[in-house]
Amino acid sequence: MRLPELRVMGVDPGLTRCGLGAVVGRAGAPLTLVKVGVARTPAGDDIGARLAAIEVEIERWLDEVRPDAVAVERVFSQSNLRTVMGTAQASAVAILCAARRGLPVALHTPSEVKAAITGYGNADKAQVGTMVTRLLRLDAMPKPADAADALALAICHIWRGGTQNRLAAALAKARPAAVPAKGTAP
Amino acid sequence: MRLPELRVMGVDPGLTRCGLGAVVGRAGAPLTLVKVGVARTPAGDDIGARLAAIEVEIERWLDEVRPDAVAVERVFSQSNLRTVMGTAQASAVAILCAARRGLPVALHTPSEVKAAITGYGNADKAQVGTMVTRLLRLDAMPKPADAADALALAICHIWRGGTQNRLAAALAKARPAAVPAKGTAP
Repeated sequence: MRLPELRVMGVDPGLTRCGLGAVVGRAGAPLTLVKVGVARTPAGDDIGARLAAIEVEIERWLDEVRPDAVAVERVFSQSNLRTVMGTAQASAVAILCAARRGLPVALHTPSEVKAAITGYGNADKAQVGTMVTRLLRLDAMPKPADAADALALAICHIWRGGTQNRLAAALAKARPAAVPAKGTAP
Repeated sequence: MRLPELRVMGVDPGLTRCGLGAVVGRAGAPLTLVKVGVARTPAGDDIGARLAAIEVEIERWLDEVRPDAVAVERVFSQSNLRTVMGTAQASAVAILCAARRGLPVALHTPSEVKAAITGYGNADKAQVGTMVTRLLRLDAMPKPADAADALALAICHIWRGGTQNRLAAALAKARPAAVPAKGTAP
């Protein structure tokens, strides 16, 4: 059975730079870049204004990209305390925007993403960027690194989601009515 | 000059229990309870559904309470790693809801709240609950503790906000047109 194509929006959450990237494809087939960019908010603004600005930008992306699923980096609190709070708050906005639309949200850890893209869970940013550029057949590495990371998240989700997508497709096929499974529609 | 009354909604953020409490009053005068409660989301639900449910509940409260300002507990990552991420994400939803309406958002640390309410920054939950009950002339201590903490946040903001409110009121008075300063309108 051929897997359905999945249109995935990846979010590398952050207040100062929130990486956004959308990819369409299926496991075992060439992937295509849909859109890549970064939402920035001024460090001097208060947290409410920054989260509201990120919400506006993510909503705009969701309207335009119309993804089947949203993949967000899972935040850990090992790193810098101040940064991690902002990252967790920005990720909450991305998750909320997706959930409100009934889109499936997947959280992938940085090492899951690195392992999926480069085969090595401790790969550095340059390695991830190089592989993203190659996998999407781009002329240059997407910049800043947050934008490349968002694309890596989307690719990771398309590849890792293989099993779940097959299951969802099989369930949809087994159902009496032709209701497409959520997140697996073309 | 008499300070204007302030209607403040306090939020003690959390995914499992998000404390909500609204108080109206001014520094140096008796305070009045407007509403108190808690928004709960099932631990088994996915993060997206939980954040969306908290958003719905906070929006409902903002519609009903019509606060002049929202006070949210400032989250630190000293405590349990898993819990703190959920707390940061729930706080992001509260801050976002307030900011979208143009409401001023204030973040107060747990020790600032305890010091304001009990005079002691390391006071325990029972002490805070007792003082909240006394200050609002309630028959019984609000339960769960998250609800009492939300009221404590609102009271802390009314008291600590004194200086800023006076300044805002003075500025409003000094202005040629009678435009009320944001967050200080009756």
